[in-house]
Amino acid sequence: MTDTEREVRAVAERAQDAAADLAPLSRGVKDAALHALADALIKRTGEITEANTRDVERARSEGTSPSMIDRLTLTPARIEQIADAVRAVADLPDPVGESVRGGVLPNGLDLRQIRVPLGVIGIIYEGRPNVTVDAAALCLKSGNASLLRGSSSAYDSNTVIVQVLRDALADTGVPADAVQMVPGRGRESSAALMRARGLVDVLIPRGGSSLIQAVVRDSTVPVIETGEGLCHVYVDADADLDKAVAIATNAKVQRCSVCNSTETLLVHQDVADAFLPRVLQDLAGEGVTVHGDEKVAAAAAGTPVEVVPATEEDWSTEYLSLDLAVRVVPDIDAALAHIRKHSTQHTEAIVTDSLEASRYFVARVDSAAVMVNASTRFTDGGEFGFGAEIGISTQKLHARGPMGLPELTSTKYVVTGEGHLR
Amino acid sequence: MTDTEREVRAVAERAQDAAADLAPLSRGVKDAALHALADALIKRTGEITEANTRDVERARSEGTSPSMIDRLTLTPARIEQIADAVRAVADLPDPVGESVRGGVLPNGLDLRQIRVPLGVIGIIYEGRPNVTVDAAALCLKSGNASLLRGSSSAYDSNTVIVQVLRDALADTGVPADAVQMVPGRGRESSAALMRARGLVDVLIPRGGSSLIQAVVRDSTVPVIETGEGLCHVYVDADADLDKAVAIATNAKVQRCSVCNSTETLLVHQDVADAFLPRVLQDLAGEGVTVHGDEKVAAAAAGTPVEVVPATEEDWSTEYLSLDLAVRVVPDIDAALAHIRKHSTQHTEAIVTDSLEASRYFVARVDSAAVMVNASTRFTDGGEFGFGAEIGISTQKLHARGPMGLPELTSTKYVVTGEGHLR
Repeated sequence: MTDTEREVRAVAERAQDAAADLAPLSRGVKDAALHALADALIKRTGEITEANTRDVERARSEGTSPSMIDRLTLTPARIEQIADAVRAVADLPDPVGESVRGGVLPNGLDLRQIRVPLGVIGIIYEGRPNVTVDAAALCLKSGNASLLRGSSSAYDSNTVIVQVLRDALADTGVPADAVQMVPGRGRESSAALMRARGLVDVLIPRGGSSLIQAVVRDSTVPVIETGEGLCHVYVDADADLDKAVAIATNAKVQRCSVCNSTETLLVHQDVADAFLPRVLQDLAGEGVTVHGDEKVAAAAAGTPVEVVPATEEDWSTEYLSLDLAVRVVPDIDAALAHIRKHSTQHTEAIVTDSLEASRYFVARVDSAAVMVNASTRFTDGGEFGFGAEIGISTQKLHARGPMGLPELTSTKYVVTGEGHLR
Repeated sequence: MTDTEREVRAVAERAQDAAADLAPLSRGVKDAALHALADALIKRTGEITEANTRDVERARSEGTSPSMIDRLTLTPARIEQIADAVRAVADLPDPVGESVRGGVLPNGLDLRQIRVPLGVIGIIYEGRPNVTVDAAALCLKSGNASLLRGSSSAYDSNTVIVQVLRDALADTGVPADAVQMVPGRGRESSAALMRARGLVDVLIPRGGSSLIQAVVRDSTVPVIETGEGLCHVYVDADADLDKAVAIATNAKVQRCSVCNSTETLLVHQDVADAFLPRVLQDLAGEGVTVHGDEKVAAAAAGTPVEVVPATEEDWSTEYLSLDLAVRVVPDIDAALAHIRKHSTQHTEAIVTDSLEASRYFVARVDSAAVMVNASTRFTDGGEFGFGAEIGISTQKLHARGPMGLPELTSTKYVVTGEGHLR
């Protein structure tokens, strides 16, 4: 075992002890602690922005892009927003103790399945230092200890933020070790976290596809995969074309850099002639580059819209930009087959007025979310009314789709008898 | 890629296709298929027992123990029981399509979270060939394709059983590839299964601790850990001692070879003098060997019961035999600390008449099941009223405790709008 491994494991052991103390705490204690965190962030804004300035200056000197610099930067106004988000978490219901199922068995045993914290949650994330606070707050509210591993670009900011949070926990009844930073900045420290099976209950990577795939590949700790979204909109033969144009355009352009934006538009051949010229013009007006098959190119022929010939690669590319792959399909089964082959199982939408087609599509699409006559952009914890979101799971085990507080819990069975024997 | 890997992946790909066809099938179709499986098992009993005889003879010639031979042996009566179990699965409610939560969002979007199959489930198991049928039936009912990897000792039996099941699926509307055996008998074939991430949605090992640990260690496919049970009974200062004697004895002796039997008895010092002589005598009467600390030995001094001095190892041994570790603890916190250190987080019980003590214990024990005044032996899908059980999860992610049909599902969000845009 290397020194880094030993250090990371020691931190994880302290997190385990903290988790045991945290589990039975009442909502009142946890909410008061969350407000203490928010107050401390406001009170110590100066220290945080000072550390953040060091990160930003280092990033500038390394030639980091302006958009990345923007994501890294903390201002007093942004810190106020972060503190507000912590207070909003305090306002959410406590998932711990919620009864999931229960009743009295024929033999008189009282059986209840109740939500309990997972224990120790490791979060590996990139960029924005606000994730440090968000993740710590959501874990604390759900009774979990957090082990935070941010990117080295935000190291100074994260170090100070975690210190502020830990100091704020003093006298709240929540142990300071409920929030810890994983020591070290190098790869070795995240590798040690990924191998701390038995100490860490789950790892949630938040960031780009390569980060997530690396964690999935290297971790012996159970992982919840998040975020990759190659989403599809399928315009059915029975679609209302006004709605179809609006949904396809909204799903692509409303915020193209996020996982729930649409990357591929599939169009039933029966409506291709009526639909394509309209949607292509709308998309072009929004600055979208269309990568289309021959039928799409043909439909664009009479219009000023230029269509880039789509290659096989386009169907499996998550652009995260103002690019859209467009394909004409002979029927709904062809659309489903295309989706099955290329989707990352995040979100797919159908636009149709046919109840039969919508039921057929919903039953056969195997994704975290299926939209009927709605933009793919709605797959989001906030939009779903969860109040907060730690990520969007694209796996099937444990949690699927936007993950709110209940998804940060496990359950246990509590069985009460009067001396029951088998 | 080796030939075995290629073969296993090809089988897994066929399972994936079958899973896609299986997912939208109605309960009626699946239940009729299950009855067809049961009928075929009865009709082709001769072929199955013939193949089984070859396995049994091979096991005998290899000097396998009589109890293992017994577990391996299939008789017409046992095959009838297996078929009955399949019919019982048909009678259970279909978890697929069940609405887990739902409602109308403020913007008018209709949001429903519904249960869907996991997809492809790999089962790696030992010994008894009845697991082949059980697992296939539970997976089919929950809309999942199964990849079955039994032990090489039951290879001939499993091969014929899987053939019988696949033949029986013809004309039922369920694809035959919904039930497949993983090709090959060697380690290489199970290793290939464990590495088929992206093709196999989850692996469930069923068997001894070394099998389970090997799967957890080597698998890149998500695993649900099952089965290890180092369970505790804690007799509190406020326990009804009659109930305590009965529960401790029942939890140990009613069936000592299974995971939910108790391995360690913890006794509050205030009741040690009154309780220990009674329980020790009862246990001795049932043939239990007691491994006790000094206080336990002292309590036994006046009785004919012999106490083996407990070593540190006893506290962490899952005996699965008529052995019991017994320790006197100063208070409930010491009992909780002992449990936290040694438990496999399966089941722990408290015997007490104090509401405060029971609430304190329940809130702080982090196990799949916590019993209050009931034997640990009740942690079981059948006892919990689930009708069937694929195993008992001792992990916190996805499923915890006895796993019935709902635990073999994931969920998806179905969101219906009227052209909703963000």
